[in-house]
Amino acid sequence: MASIISSKPRKVAVVGAGPVGCLAALALAKRGWAVDLIEGRPDMRLPSSKAATQQRSINLAISHRGIAALEAVDPAAAKRFLKAAIPMRGRMIHKLSGELDSQLYDRDGQCINSIDRALLNEGLLEEAAASPKIRILFNHKVIAADFDDQSLTIRDTTSNAELSSHFDFCIGADGSFSIIRRQMTRAVRMNYQQEYIRDEYVELKMPAGRDANGEPAFLLDPNHLHIWPRHSFMLIALPNQDKTFTCTLFAPTTELDHLLSADQILTWFKSYFPDAVRAIGEKTLVEDFVRNPRSVLICTKAKPYHYRDRAIILGDAAHSMVPFYGQGLNAGLEDVRILSTLLDEEGVTSSAPIYDHPGNYDDRRLSSALQRYTDTRHEDLVAITDLAMDNYIEMRHSVTQLGYLFRKTLDNVLYSLTSPRIVSLASLIPTLAKSPYPTGKPNGWLPLYTMVTFRPDINYATVKQKAARQATILAWLTWIGVLLLGVVGSWIAWIMREMLVNYLVNSK
Amino acid sequence: MASIISSKPRKVAVVGAGPVGCLAALALAKRGWAVDLIEGRPDMRLPSSKAATQQRSINLAISHRGIAALEAVDPAAAKRFLKAAIPMRGRMIHKLSGELDSQLYDRDGQCINSIDRALLNEGLLEEAAASPKIRILFNHKVIAADFDDQSLTIRDTTSNAELSSHFDFCIGADGSFSIIRRQMTRAVRMNYQQEYIRDEYVELKMPAGRDANGEPAFLLDPNHLHIWPRHSFMLIALPNQDKTFTCTLFAPTTELDHLLSADQILTWFKSYFPDAVRAIGEKTLVEDFVRNPRSVLICTKAKPYHYRDRAIILGDAAHSMVPFYGQGLNAGLEDVRILSTLLDEEGVTSSAPIYDHPGNYDDRRLSSALQRYTDTRHEDLVAITDLAMDNYIEMRHSVTQLGYLFRKTLDNVLYSLTSPRIVSLASLIPTLAKSPYPTGKPNGWLPLYTMVTFRPDINYATVKQKAARQATILAWLTWIGVLLLGVVGSWIAWIMREMLVNYLVNSK
Repeated sequence: MASIISSKPRKVAVVGAGPVGCLAALALAKRGWAVDLIEGRPDMRLPSSKAATQQRSINLAISHRGIAALEAVDPAAAKRFLKAAIPMRGRMIHKLSGELDSQLYDRDGQCINSIDRALLNEGLLEEAAASPKIRILFNHKVIAADFDDQSLTIRDTTSNAELSSHFDFCIGADGSFSIIRRQMTRAVRMNYQQEYIRDEYVELKMPAGRDANGEPAFLLDPNHLHIWPRHSFMLIALPNQDKTFTCTLFAPTTELDHLLSADQILTWFKSYFPDAVRAIGEKTLVEDFVRNPRSVLICTKAKPYHYRDRAIILGDAAHSMVPFYGQGLNAGLEDVRILSTLLDEEGVTSSAPIYDHPGNYDDRRLSSALQRYTDTRHEDLVAITDLAMDNYIEMRHSVTQLGYLFRKTLDNVLYSLTSPRIVSLASLIPTLAKSPYPTGKPNGWLPLYTMVTFRPDINYATVKQKAARQATILAWLTWIGVLLLGVVGSWIAWIMREMLVNYLVNSK
Repeated sequence: MASIISSKPRKVAVVGAGPVGCLAALALAKRGWAVDLIEGRPDMRLPSSKAATQQRSINLAISHRGIAALEAVDPAAAKRFLKAAIPMRGRMIHKLSGELDSQLYDRDGQCINSIDRALLNEGLLEEAAASPKIRILFNHKVIAADFDDQSLTIRDTTSNAELSSHFDFCIGADGSFSIIRRQMTRAVRMNYQQEYIRDEYVELKMPAGRDANGEPAFLLDPNHLHIWPRHSFMLIALPNQDKTFTCTLFAPTTELDHLLSADQILTWFKSYFPDAVRAIGEKTLVEDFVRNPRSVLICTKAKPYHYRDRAIILGDAAHSMVPFYGQGLNAGLEDVRILSTLLDEEGVTSSAPIYDHPGNYDDRRLSSALQRYTDTRHEDLVAITDLAMDNYIEMRHSVTQLGYLFRKTLDNVLYSLTSPRIVSLASLIPTLAKSPYPTGKPNGWLPLYTMVTFRPDINYATVKQKAARQATILAWLTWIGVLLLGVVGSWIAWIMREMLVNYLVNSK
């Protein structure tokens, strides 16, 4: 057995400078670790990069889990981001008839927040650039990783030179098609699963209108997430600071394949989304639809997330999910918070141990923190990935069904009866700072959406279990309700029949 | 639309010269296609390669599906291989007490066949080398594939030179960690799943004994597949031509991790497999166990298997499965037979079409054959992959349980009552030659093992469905049996009580 004779400052390579990579870099820099933040693309803050990033991604809906994670690393930044976001209180369902139906997310008025992905990412990059412990390398593409040798092979895409970089610890936050994950599968027996769903998405821009004074104004209520549910496909819209909306059409590839000419596109949109076509404008709609890429939706699961004390994957690199619960980024940011808490709990310090004789020893505290991360986090991430897939059917279809609305009402009634307290994010943060997994079970009746979105103190796996139990009870109550309605109905019918008979007999 | 003005001889690159790759090369050469068979390792027939290949893989149990596929491509070779194989009529269960229990595979005496993987592979390589349409390239490692450009980048590992090779059509038969599959995921949206099971395997050699005349002789009955089921792990043994047995221990990693010293190894083996230890010999056992690699078991699923008219993956590259149904290679060889039949059905010729003006056109007949392959084959391969996983529990645990033996007996009784005919492979081959998927449904009661192993005319998906239906019936019959036994038992007890009372009354 080797023993520790000395130590050296820990050097971390964070691969991928998206929101999760940036937050991970900030969290480790705060612990005193030296961080290289390595990004294959150019700096998105440069004017030359703007155009490319702008048409690429779904707006973000950041909610309590994401905010709690930002708060844990940089409370000032969290407040700044929230100021730039637009709160959305509920879903606004646009029926085919043009009728609107507002469905609030939470009884106590809690909101999710629409934020421009670029704005959030740039803000976090600014924070990272300002940290003396973080060095950001743009245009540096990782092409290979050797975790036993603790080195990355990187190509500088501006000079096309290849370089090798040493690390003590490596974080892969490089998205769904992660190179770090792919390289990890060579070192560790990783169970892995990827599934493309049958749908693709296309983004469209809804311009700002003008108010009475000629000032830019929202064309739809800005404090809602707008949904046009059309059963096998749907359109959604999220508000932006500049009074525009970003619309996203989700539809099966087979449906989109039929829309070839401007005529076909317009006819199709007009027949399913007439009010959206009026707001977007026919010309803009056709232009956007033809020019903007059709993007795929992929769902991935992996286990383990780590290798020894050498590497871990976070965010989409570890768990791509479909965007229908608005939890993809929230879960990614939460990954960082939970990893940080586990590093605290295991007492991982800012310096890496050096052993007394040559050998391939691990920093046992770090590897145990990473092992605990894989062990506890996997069930949660599988749960939210599955819930996100389920929610697509809810958004594009169920929200229009009477049975759904009845169950939802009952859900809220039970919530009111059993959980009278308002739980705010602020009240939860002290608990979250202590441990990622509070030991107490949530009490009372809580709607699924509330638990997923507004209760970062309940982990996703517990959410899924509790929701399944509640769904069974709701189904029973619905049946009992239908039965009672039938009994009462028959009784009333019987009384009315008696009265009619009496009347007829008496009137004879 | 482009039209065909001319054609050129079709050039195929088959990557991987294992049994599936060799059979695919032979099948396409027989159609008149020019084949490059590309293999990263050295020629296994060379004496210098022997040692490396010998300790690497589980013995093969080739059964009707594999034989039917060999027959379809090269009937003479199929006969030769079968001659070199040792028929196994059933399982021989070795209980901890040393007691033996023979469980036949089939009522009609049909057998599976133990064959040395190297022997089969070398035989197929000989056939390929003899074909004027096949060029074999050993020590040539594919490092990249561009399917739109129809080219492979290959490294000649002897000279370390990189070369580019053109193909019209590419077959990936390069095993579980297939580079062709990996490259295909860049061109096509492939759903993919890989799962390591908790168990590993180690091979051990059981030497030949001596008979009365001092000649080499088998130490166990050669016409059985021997199993030592020990619930959470097991040992199996398959006979070889030289009167030895190849034994394979399957056990959880956690179990194997405890066996560090020679003492620990021997104590463990002696307590669970005393008769096997005596036959193998203590010294050989410890030497083999320490020297031979601990190999992993991986299970993979993919879809689609093809890309346009350019490429397809076959065998382990498309569907690695655990070896507990002895169907991995059989399914891989069957892949080749089914692909050939689909090429026939779609009328794919030996020459590739050339179009009248530049563009990226597909040979529609070929791409439609490949599409049909993916569409029809996926459900089958998922079914056998799942059945193989289920069979592990049967082999290491269920075979020792009373309930299992009762159900198995009932299974065979129902089989005898409803299916009196003997179906031989020879009688099935003319049907198989016509279509990979006979339209007729199998009649009567057929045990699962019989369908998987001896009925290549029934596809795996149908096998799985029919088996599930039969299992439900068996479970009901078992319950009814238990009930009847209870009723009859109570009745007998009552009669005996009455007789006793009468006797006591009379004797007073």
